Amino acid sequence: MTSSNPIRVGVVGAGNMGADHVNTLHRWVSGAQVTYVADIDGRRAAEVAAGVPGARATDDAYALIAHPDVDAVVIASHDSTHADLAIAAVRAGKAVMCEKPLAPTAAECVRVLREDGTHLVSLGFMRRFDPGYADLRAALGSGTAGAPLLVHCVSRGVSSAPGATDEFSVTGSAIHEFDTVPWLLGAPITEVSWHAARPTSAVAGLRDPQVMLLRTADGALTTVETFLNAGYGYDVRCEVVGEHGTLALTDPARLVSDTARTRATGYPADWRPRFADAYRLELQAWTDAIAAGRPAPLATAYDGLVAAAVAEAVIGSMHADGRTVAVQVPEV
Amino acid sequence: MTSSNPIRVGVVGAGNMGADHVNTLHRWVSGAQVTYVADIDGRRAAEVAAGVPGARATDDAYALIAHPDVDAVVIASHDSTHADLAIAAVRAGKAVMCEKPLAPTAAECVRVLREDGTHLVSLGFMRRFDPGYADLRAALGSGTAGAPLLVHCVSRGVSSAPGATDEFSVTGSAIHEFDTVPWLLGAPITEVSWHAARPTSAVAGLRDPQVMLLRTADGALTTVETFLNAGYGYDVRCEVVGEHGTLALTDPARLVSDTARTRATGYPADWRPRFADAYRLELQAWTDAIAAGRPAPLATAYDGLVAAAVAEAVIGSMHADGRTVAVQVPEV
Amino acid sequence: MTSSNPIRVGVVGAGNMGADHVNTLHRWVSGAQVTYVADIDGRRAAEVAAGVPGARATDDAYALIAHPDVDAVVIASHDSTHADLAIAAVRAGKAVMCEKPLAPTAAECVRVLREDGTHLVSLGFMRRFDPGYADLRAALGSGTAGAPLLVHCVSRGVSSAPGATDEFSVTGSAIHEFDTVPWLLGAPITEVSWHAARPTSAVAGLRDPQVMLLRTADGALTTVETFLNAGYGYDVRCEVVGEHGTLALTDPARLVSDTARTRATGYPADWRPRFADAYRLELQAWTDAIAAGRPAPLATAYDGLVAAAVAEAVIGSMHADGRTVAVQVPEV
Amino acid sequence: MTSSNPIRVGVVGAGNMGADHVNTLHRWVSGAQVTYVADIDGRRAAEVAAGVPGARATDDAYALIAHPDVDAVVIASHDSTHADLAIAAVRAGKAVMCEKPLAPTAAECVRVLREDGTHLVSLGFMRRFDPGYADLRAALGSGTAGAPLLVHCVSRGVSSAPGATDEFSVTGSAIHEFDTVPWLLGAPITEVSWHAARPTSAVAGLRDPQVMLLRTADGALTTVETFLNAGYGYDVRCEVVGEHGTLALTDPARLVSDTARTRATGYPADWRPRFADAYRLELQAWTDAIAAGRPAPLATAYDGLVAAAVAEAVIGSMHADGRTVAVQVPEV
Repeated sequence: MTSSNPIRVGVVGAGNMGADHVNTLHRWVSGAQVTYVADIDGRRAAEVAAGVPGARATDDAYALIAHPDVDAVVIASHDSTHADLAIAAVRAGKAVMCEKPLAPTAAECVRVLREDGTHLVSLGFMRRFDPGYADLRAALGSGTAGAPLLVHCVSRGVSSAPGATDEFSVTGSAIHEFDTVPWLLGAPITEVSWHAARPTSAVAGLRDPQVMLLRTADGALTTVETFLNAGYGYDVRCEVVGEHGTLALTDPARLVSDTARTRATGYPADWRPRFADAYRLELQAWTDAIAAGRPAPLATAYDGLVAAAVAEAVIGSMHADGRTVAVQVPEV
Repeated sequence: MTSSNPIRVGVVGAGNMGADHVNTLHRWVSGAQVTYVADIDGRRAAEVAAGVPGARATDDAYALIAHPDVDAVVIASHDSTHADLAIAAVRAGKAVMCEKPLAPTAAECVRVLREDGTHLVSLGFMRRFDPGYADLRAALGSGTAGAPLLVHCVSRGVSSAPGATDEFSVTGSAIHEFDTVPWLLGAPITEVSWHAARPTSAVAGLRDPQVMLLRTADGALTTVETFLNAGYGYDVRCEVVGEHGTLALTDPARLVSDTARTRATGYPADWRPRFADAYRLELQAWTDAIAAGRPAPLATAYDGLVAAAVAEAVIGSMHADGRTVAVQVPEV
Repeated sequence: MTSSNPIRVGVVGAGNMGADHVNTLHRWVSGAQVTYVADIDGRRAAEVAAGVPGARATDDAYALIAHPDVDAVVIASHDSTHADLAIAAVRAGKAVMCEKPLAPTAAECVRVLREDGTHLVSLGFMRRFDPGYADLRAALGSGTAGAPLLVHCVSRGVSSAPGATDEFSVTGSAIHEFDTVPWLLGAPITEVSWHAARPTSAVAGLRDPQVMLLRTADGALTTVETFLNAGYGYDVRCEVVGEHGTLALTDPARLVSDTARTRATGYPADWRPRFADAYRLELQAWTDAIAAGRPAPLATAYDGLVAAAVAEAVIGSMHADGRTVAVQVPEV
Repeated sequence: MTSSNPIRVGVVGAGNMGADHVNTLHRWVSGAQVTYVADIDGRRAAEVAAGVPGARATDDAYALIAHPDVDAVVIASHDSTHADLAIAAVRAGKAVMCEKPLAPTAAECVRVLREDGTHLVSLGFMRRFDPGYADLRAALGSGTAGAPLLVHCVSRGVSSAPGATDEFSVTGSAIHEFDTVPWLLGAPITEVSWHAARPTSAVAGLRDPQVMLLRTADGALTTVETFLNAGYGYDVRCEVVGEHGTLALTDPARLVSDTARTRATGYPADWRPRFADAYRLELQAWTDAIAAGRPAPLATAYDGLVAAAVAEAVIGSMHADGRTVAVQVPEV
C-alpha cells in the first residue's frame, strides 16, 4: 500500500503572517508538510520551525528555495522582497504562494510576469476562499439578485501599525477590495477616485478613514470605506446591489449574549480569526492543485499586477484632490 | 370643567400624502381636529373629508386658508403650489406644516423666507420624528461613538413613479438625507458630488441607482445611495461611523419567519408603513406646539431652503460629470 | 361646524401604571380627555392630575365613578380593588378599562361577570395591541406557517419587586401569556404544569426562573419561561412553530452600535418602553369604540376570568410538585 | 529529513455518514490517511474507497480492523453493529471513533465499557467540536453569564426518514442534547420528562414535535424541542440563561439577501453543511491525539453510556404519560 507523498513546503518569512502559514500548513492542511522556514532573523526562523517536527530553519531564503526538500514555496516576508523571491522560485520550477502584494509597484509586478513560468505563482488574496465571499460569488452567479449595479465594501480595523501612511490604507487594506470586486463581478476596475473623510484623532496626521469609488467595466459602481483605526474591532462588510435584490455578508459572530442592558455579538481584534478559514482553505486548495498537477485556483500573478495598478490609480487620485483616474494596467 | 379646545386643521391636497395626513390627524393625533380639506379636484377633497365627521371640503385652497374654522394648515398639494400656499397661510397668521419641498427651487424658497412670519412655517422632514433616527441622534449626542467621521445613507424603493427623472432621485428622495445628515451631525453640507452607477434596466433611460458624496462643515463625509427601482422593497438605512464606534438603524421588521429554507423578515412596499410613526409624531409635536404657543420642533422653512440648495448643488454635479460642487445657500 | 365631543375619562389609581395611563390618554390618544384622577393617596392623585389642564383629583374612587364629567373609567389601582370598582362602574353604566387582573381570584372574577352589563368591562391585556404580537396573530391567520404545534414564550425582567413571591411570577408575569396564547391560537388552555429551574441567588428564597407547560384545546403545547430577576433587561419573546414554518417576534431595538469589540442593541429596564405603543393603541381603540358606541376590541372581563383560572391551575401545579393540572373555568 | 507518518485510518460503513468521514479524513484532515473502507455491501465500499488513492475496500469489517495497514478505526455502520465492532477494535489495540450511539441500549454500552482498553474508544458527539458550541462553552466558563439556570435547546429537521418512530426523536436527535447539555454545564442529567405537542400532519401516526424537560445535578432545567418534520430547514439552537445574562448560538448563515419584499438568510436541508466544520475538527483532534499518543479530547465510551441511559429514561417517560423519570446509569 502506497500513499501519495505530501507536498513539502518552505515558508519564507517568520513574522505574524509567516508563522500563521506555518501553523496552518502543519496543523490544518491535508497533504502538506512544512520542511523549511526562512527569515532574515535566523533565530525567529528557528523558533517558528521548532513548532513543526522535522522542519529546518535558515536565514537564507534563496537556500530554502533551492533546497531539494522544498517542493513549493510560501512567501510571507517583507513586501519589498516578494518579487525577487517569486522570480527565484519560478526559476527553480517551484510553485509559489506569495502574500499580497506581488510587489510594491505595478512596474515590479511586470518584472515577475515577464519571467517564464509565472503560471507557477499564486497570490494570497485569501478573501476568495472565505466561505462568505465564496457563497456571495456563487449567489451572484445564480442570478437571483439580477445584474450587479452597486457594491458597498467596508474594511475596518482596530488600529493602524506604527508609521502607517495614507497610502497604506490603499496598498495594505483596500487592495483586498481591488481583487475581490472584479472577482465577484467578473469585470475589471476601469476608473477610480479617492475621498478623505474627517480624519480620526487617533493617529495624528493620518487621513483615516478613506472612501474610494471604483468603476468596473460593466458600469457598476463600488464604494469602499477603509478605516484602519475604527477602534471597535476588525470588521469586513460587503453588499452587492443588483437589479432584483441584494446580497451581503452577515455578521460572522457565532455567539450572542445578553448582559447589562445589551444584546451583543463580538468582533475580533484583527483579521486572523475573521479569515482563519479563508487562509486554511486557500492553502489546502493550493496544496491540492500542486499534488494533482493542476493550476492553482488562487489569484494569479497577473491578478496581483492588476490590483497593484488599481492601487496606483487610487493613490494618483489621492494626490490629485480626488479627481477620477483611469486604471492603467501595464502591458506584460 | 373646561378642556383646551382642539387645534382646527385644514389640509390642502387630498392625494396619497394629504389623505394620510387627514387620517393621521383625525385618528391618531391628540388635540387636533380636521375641519377642512381642499383639493384642486373638489370631488377628491370631498371623499377624503367624508372620513372625518364635521369636516368640510373645497376646491379652493385659499378659501380654506382664510376660513375662521382653520387654525393651522397642512400643505400636501403639488410641489409647485407649496410656496404660494405657505405665503398665504403666513399672511393669514396661521401655522403651516408644509410637505417637503418648500419649493422646487432655492430661489422660490427664498421668496417664502422673505415674508414676515415665516417662523410659522414647518417643513415635513418627518425622519426627524422617526423613533430610530431620533434615537440615533440622541446616541450621537451622548458621545459614545465619538466624533462622527463618516455617514452611510441608503434609500431604496420598489419602483419609481411614471415619468421619474434623474433629478427626482435628488429632489424627491435624497433630499431627506440632505436634511437628516446636518440634523444628525449638527453641521451643514458644504460640498457635494454625484455619481451614477450602472443603471437598472427596469426603467429605460433613467440613471438609477445614484451615489452622492456630501461633505459637511465638520469635515465628515457622507455617502448616499438612492435607488428608486430597487424592486425588493422600501428600505432606508443609516450608519454613522465615529472615532470610537458606529451607530446604525436596525431592520425595523417586527416579525421573523422560517419557511421554505429561509429565515425572513419583510419589507414594506412603500414609505408609509416605514414612517407611519414618524408622521404621527411629527403632527402630534406640531399640534402640541401650536396649542402651547411654542415654536414647533419640526424642520423650519430655512431648513427647507438649505435642503433645496444642497439638491441644486447635487444636480449641478450631475450635469457636470460628477465634479465636486460647493453648496450655495442664497441669502434671505 | 361641530366636532364630536371627546370621551371624558376618569383614571383610578395614580401609581406608575395609572400615571402612565393619564399621560398616554392626555398626550397621545385622539378623542380622549382625562377629567378626573383618583388615588387613595389624594396628594398623589393631585400631582398626577396637575399634568392635565382641567383635570380634577380625588381620594374617593367611587365619587370619580359617579361624577357626570366622567364618561368612562380606567382602573389601575391595587389589584384587590379592581372587582369592586369595576362593578361600581358597570352599575353606573360606564365603560371600564381595568388593568389585569380583573380580580386576584377566579371566584371574584365570577362576581364581576354576574353583574348585568359586564360587556362594558375591558381588560388591560395590552399585548394584544403590541404591533409585533398583532402582526404575529395576523400572520398565523394567513396560514403560511401552517397549523400551530408549539409556542415558546419568554418573559424576563431586570429584578423583582420587594416581597415578590413564587406565585407572583404566575399571576403578575405569566398571566400575560395565559391571555396571549389562546388569543394567538384561537384555542383555550386546558391543562398546565409548573417546573422550577435552579433559582437565581439574586433573591433568597424565590423560585425564579420558572418554566410552565400549557396545553391548548387544539393540542398545541406552549412552553413559558418567566424570569423576574434576569438582570440584563426587560425582554419578551414569542415564537410559534407551525406545520410549515415558524413565526416569531424580533428584537425591537431601533439602534445597533459597534463599540469596544461588540455589536450591540439595547434592552429597556422595564416593560414601559417595550409596550408604550401597545398601551397607546389599546387606549385609542377603547376610546374609539366608546365614541362609536361599538364593543371595545380589547380583552373582555370573561378573558380576565379565564386567565385567572389558568393562573390558579398553574399555582395548583406549583403546589403539587409539578403534576399536570386541568384548567377549570368557573361557570358564570 | 523525516516526517511523522500519517495515521492510517480504516472506515467501517460506507453510507452517507461513513462516506462523509472518508472524504473529510482524506481531503481535510492533516496527518490522516484513509487506507481501508468496509461495508456490508462490498460494492459500496469499493465506490467510496475509489475516491482515495491507495485505499482498499472490503465487505468484512473485522478484516479491516485486524489489518496491519490500519492504525485506527472509524465506525459509521448500522447502529446495531457499533458495540461488537468497537470491542473488536479495542481488542486489536486500535483507537476507535464510533458514531453515536455506542449501542442501541445502555446495557449493550456496558458490555463495551467492561472491556479492557475502552479508553481507546471515542464517541462521535461532534457538536462538542462545532465552533459555536465550543465558544458557548468557553463563554460559560468565563462566568460573564453567571451560574446557568436554564437551557433552551431546539433541533429541527426538514423531514423524518421513512419508518421513523416516536423513540427515534429521542435516540437519534435529542441524544445530541443529552451529551451537549452536561458537557456545557459540567453536570449530569438526573431526571427527565417527555411531552408531546400536537403532532404534525406531515407523517401519520408520528408524535412529532416533542418537548423534553431535563434536570441536571446543578439544579438547572433544560427544555428540549425536537421536530423532525419542521419542513423549513435544518435548524439547531441553544440558549443558556444564567444569573447575570444569557449566551446563545447565532444563525450561522453567511449570506443575507433582499428580494421580493423579504430580507432572508438560508437554512441547509440537513445536518451536514451545518456541522461540516464540527466533523472536520473532531476528526482532526482525534488524529492529532493518536499521533501524539495522548487521550483523544472527544466524548468517551462512558459519555455514550450516559447519553443512552438518559435516552432510556426519556423513553420511559414517553411510555408513562410524561411523568418524571430518574436517570439510572448502569454500573460498569
